[in-house]
Amino acid sequence: MPRDNCYIALLHYPVYNKKGIIVTTAVTNMDIHDISRAARTYGVKRFYIITPFEEQKRFVERILRHWQKGYGASYNPLRKQALDITDVKNTLDDAVADIANETGGAKVNLVITGASVKGTFTKYAELKHAIAESNEAYLLLFGTGWGIARDVVTTADVVLEPIHGLSDYNHLSVRSAVSIILDRLFGKR
Amino acid sequence: MPRDNCYIALLHYPVYNKKGIIVTTAVTNMDIHDISRAARTYGVKRFYIITPFEEQKRFVERILRHWQKGYGASYNPLRKQALDITDVKNTLDDAVADIANETGGAKVNLVITGASVKGTFTKYAELKHAIAESNEAYLLLFGTGWGIARDVVTTADVVLEPIHGLSDYNHLSVRSAVSIILDRLFGKR
Repeated sequence: MPRDNCYIALLHYPVYNKKGIIVTTAVTNMDIHDISRAARTYGVKRFYIITPFEEQKRFVERILRHWQKGYGASYNPLRKQALDITDVKNTLDDAVADIANETGGAKVNLVITGASVKGTFTKYAELKHAIAESNEAYLLLFGTGWGIARDVVTTADVVLEPIHGLSDYNHLSVRSAVSIILDRLFGKR
Repeated sequence: MPRDNCYIALLHYPVYNKKGIIVTTAVTNMDIHDISRAARTYGVKRFYIITPFEEQKRFVERILRHWQKGYGASYNPLRKQALDITDVKNTLDDAVADIANETGGAKVNLVITGASVKGTFTKYAELKHAIAESNEAYLLLFGTGWGIARDVVTTADVVLEPIHGLSDYNHLSVRSAVSIILDRLFGKR
């Protein structure tokens, strides 16, 4: 069952700020749209936005409602299709529990992404193969701010190789990173 | 001289709106940042934002100045490095003339991208090879709104194969499309 087992999440807490302090970042409208569209294009099962703040969750829910059921759904049905796979959760654990529930208890492999993560990296071809062959679920986690907190990184089942361009510069937006990683894993060419 | 010969441009006129009428779209702050960062990561020589509207050009110039020379340059030097390659031009012809001037008169090959373009497509591997081997310049053109006007498409030297994900859905943001195409052409893995 190709890619019926692949999920992604955008983490707003716990992540680092510029000074290396753990904070909650704000959800942005552009992240919701761009990442939903990329996820839908590459056949991702569900895209979780993770924030513990009630006000932020209500902000996300209001946007999702507009495009899933409100005026946006008839104005732009293609956007509805993208945002239909998007959901908001309190914590990473809640997202993992949701996947386990949806898959009837499959193991959820946590895949950490990031430009500056440390660890033993898994190559794209290897992860692609694992996702295609496995009956387990895979959750690709993307950070905001200055990256995913170490306490989360250490719980990874897989640490994905960082993206390298062709310069010494490697500071993509999270929207770009999600798009590139999904294309490397699932793009047809 | 690998990639010293690769340029990208984001076209705000002439492009289609939802009804197929030719319009000028608004420049967005997120496009400037995300696309500059991706361009810098993948070694693109220059990123042109193309709009004929004086007010829009001043908006872009104000943002560029803030990050290239203003408070932004010291607050976030990495962002400065990205936005240093970004420029704004009146027309596509002006961008082409700028490249010809910078390269000492090299031929500028116009590469059209887009999800719904028609024509004889060039594959990524083929374009990658051409850029690596050629002394000519290559300008990858990305549309906004509902796509690049036909009058521009017909002047293409190359029409690049559209991106295919793994679903029937193919509606990426232009920020995602730029990131994925640069990764397919120049990403190291």
